[in-house]
Amino acid sequence: MAYITIPEEEQLPGIRGLMAFRPETARPLNLLAEALLRETDNDLTRGDRELIATYVSFLNDCLFCQSVHGAAAQCYLEDDGTLINQVKQKYQDAPVSDKMKALLSIAASVQKGGKHVMPHQIENAKNEGATDSEIHDTVLIAAAFCMFNRYVDGLGTWASTDQQSYIPRGIRIAAEGYAGFDALKSIGK
Amino acid sequence: MAYITIPEEEQLPGIRGLMAFRPETARPLNLLAEALLRETDNDLTRGDRELIATYVSFLNDCLFCQSVHGAAAQCYLEDDGTLINQVKQKYQDAPVSDKMKALLSIAASVQKGGKHVMPHQIENAKNEGATDSEIHDTVLIAAAFCMFNRYVDGLGTWASTDQQSYIPRGIRIAAEGYAGFDALKSIGK
Repeated sequence: MAYITIPEEEQLPGIRGLMAFRPETARPLNLLAEALLRETDNDLTRGDRELIATYVSFLNDCLFCQSVHGAAAQCYLEDDGTLINQVKQKYQDAPVSDKMKALLSIAASVQKGGKHVMPHQIENAKNEGATDSEIHDTVLIAAAFCMFNRYVDGLGTWASTDQQSYIPRGIRIAAEGYAGFDALKSIGK
Repeated sequence: MAYITIPEEEQLPGIRGLMAFRPETARPLNLLAEALLRETDNDLTRGDRELIATYVSFLNDCLFCQSVHGAAAQCYLEDDGTLINQVKQKYQDAPVSDKMKALLSIAASVQKGGKHVMPHQIENAKNEGATDSEIHDTVLIAAAFCMFNRYVDGLGTWASTDQQSYIPRGIRIAAEGYAGFDALKSIGK
């Protein structure tokens, strides 16, 4: 049970119950997710972005976020979960590009704290072809999930341990995105 | 110098240069700050909210955010900086309410990670009169500043060490808020 009383809690796990509780903050949070994870103006794909989000959520040990965004990443990347797990276990050995590895290294440092990002990591990412825009988005995605993960777990929300149960949500995110998401509408209110 | 090339960097310290670099994400970030720090629907005042933001930014060692939001808190709370410094040094002994101390304890746990928040901290806050809405907002403010701080420092932005230089910005935030903030407009573009 979450630390605060949220509407129809049993139907709304993780951040969804919190968004129903406080629609005033849900709106900018969803607009941020849409801008960061969907509206790309550089070569980072939607799958790449969800992969970074999933990896940071895994590092923060946030079951809900790593499962939902892992499902979205699987959908975009046409992955059965193998790639996601390889990245979580050791991204350095996963079948992703060297640029992606450099960006995941930056994301992992951001998870620890902003000052953990070192100039040589930025230089390495640029040497692998990352643009300023891609580096910016990687840092902000990683930072944003340090917020989302803390929001979800800091209020003690519930999340399913059944990974398969997240697959439909990942498909829906890929199809509809975040901007139109309305937690109350989703429970028929 | 920041890790990425931002417009007219020397005039735009901290998050402001990043917002000019990427207006697409600046908009929801400012809407979130406005909803969280200004549009209160409970007894947490704007000063209380900026104080929580300042304290978390201090714990994350983010010079820019703790200075800007500290200046805003000073303005709302009519403080010359004494109270802010007392909270930073040891909020338990600062002249704030017991409810505020309980909420600052929750914020400090969120700074470490969502799962660091313990049920007895929530219970204590409720015993001191905190509502679900106030606990929600405290957790989300603390989580959001774990994002803002990482964004600012993870991209290596510059910030002044002259605390007095932040005072006018704090006054402007108190007067105008965040929603209308446009980084490009502020440099006349």
